[in-house]
Amino acid sequence: MTFQELVNKRQSNRAYSNKPVEENKIIQCVEAARMAPSACNSQPWKFIIVDNPELKNKLAQTTSNRLLPLNHFTNQAPVHIVIINEGSNFTATLGNKIKNRNFSLIDIGIAAEHFCLQAEELGLGTCMIGWFKEKELKSLLNIPEKKRPELVITIGYPADEYREKKRKSLEKILSYNTY
Amino acid sequence: MTFQELVNKRQSNRAYSNKPVEENKIIQCVEAARMAPSACNSQPWKFIIVDNPELKNKLAQTTSNRLLPLNHFTNQAPVHIVIINEGSNFTATLGNKIKNRNFSLIDIGIAAEHFCLQAEELGLGTCMIGWFKEKELKSLLNIPEKKRPELVITIGYPADEYREKKRKSLEKILSYNTY
Repeated sequence: MTFQELVNKRQSNRAYSNKPVEENKIIQCVEAARMAPSACNSQPWKFIIVDNPELKNKLAQTTSNRLLPLNHFTNQAPVHIVIINEGSNFTATLGNKIKNRNFSLIDIGIAAEHFCLQAEELGLGTCMIGWFKEKELKSLLNIPEKKRPELVITIGYPADEYREKKRKSLEKILSYNTY
Repeated sequence: MTFQELVNKRQSNRAYSNKPVEENKIIQCVEAARMAPSACNSQPWKFIIVDNPELKNKLAQTTSNRLLPLNHFTNQAPVHIVIINEGSNFTATLGNKIKNRNFSLIDIGIAAEHFCLQAEELGLGTCMIGWFKEKELKSLLNIPEKKRPELVITIGYPADEYREKKRKSLEKILSYNTY
């Protein structure tokens, strides 16, 4: 599969079969995320694999919300991954402060997408979720007060159809030598 | 090339040959970025391709810094890409505010990495740079006051050797069902 085919094939999967996910496949996805680049090689991430069914179902309640009916699917996914922001290293933190930026969020986006693209290549489906009840989620997984969960990724064998991607045209997002 | 091979091959290239980069290859990279997922499908990005040699050299001066000798290489790269944060759409902005998050940075990390991985597959080298003189860069490319450039990506045919990646061990970044 070319990279373009992989990118086009990946989608936010919101329906899953009940086929269990092989543990070694999840490890392969974390391995792809582990190799992601980051500002000053900070690697400001930690991955919690939630595969205990009871705990996973409780976790799914933190991502499901009356306001967001789109996310009612989460309890279908057999495994959830929670990505924790561990904070940047000294150099990147200095850069964050001097330049008023938060490089760790960019880094976490990159690592999360490595995870999802690797999953796609292995025939698995994923959905990144950034909207969840943070306090409940932290308490459920014993996440220290000062650490922040940034994303939950649902993973499993997908049961939804391929949807055509809706994206802005190239002309709308591209220019040469000036804004 | 498997996704794992692609991920392992990609590195921050800080030396470039003077072989020009084909325009259609750069477009392929932007196309890969265009298909990236984003919170609420916001697509909060714009890409400026800086391929005018004189302008590109001026841009390289905004990423070069006495404090960061690592970035003195930027003028070697024949083309630079500047990624502008266009701001999230209404739904994602609401999410940002309610949840005190900045999803657009995660989105931009994902799109930037799509760009770089596509470049790698095409035999091109890239380096993401988040540290630059923002005011000078904005003035150079006529970027509106309210828009923020988040990353500069240098792109060209690489002239540096492959370096073994230094990453935290899997054990250090991974846990099951609890932090």
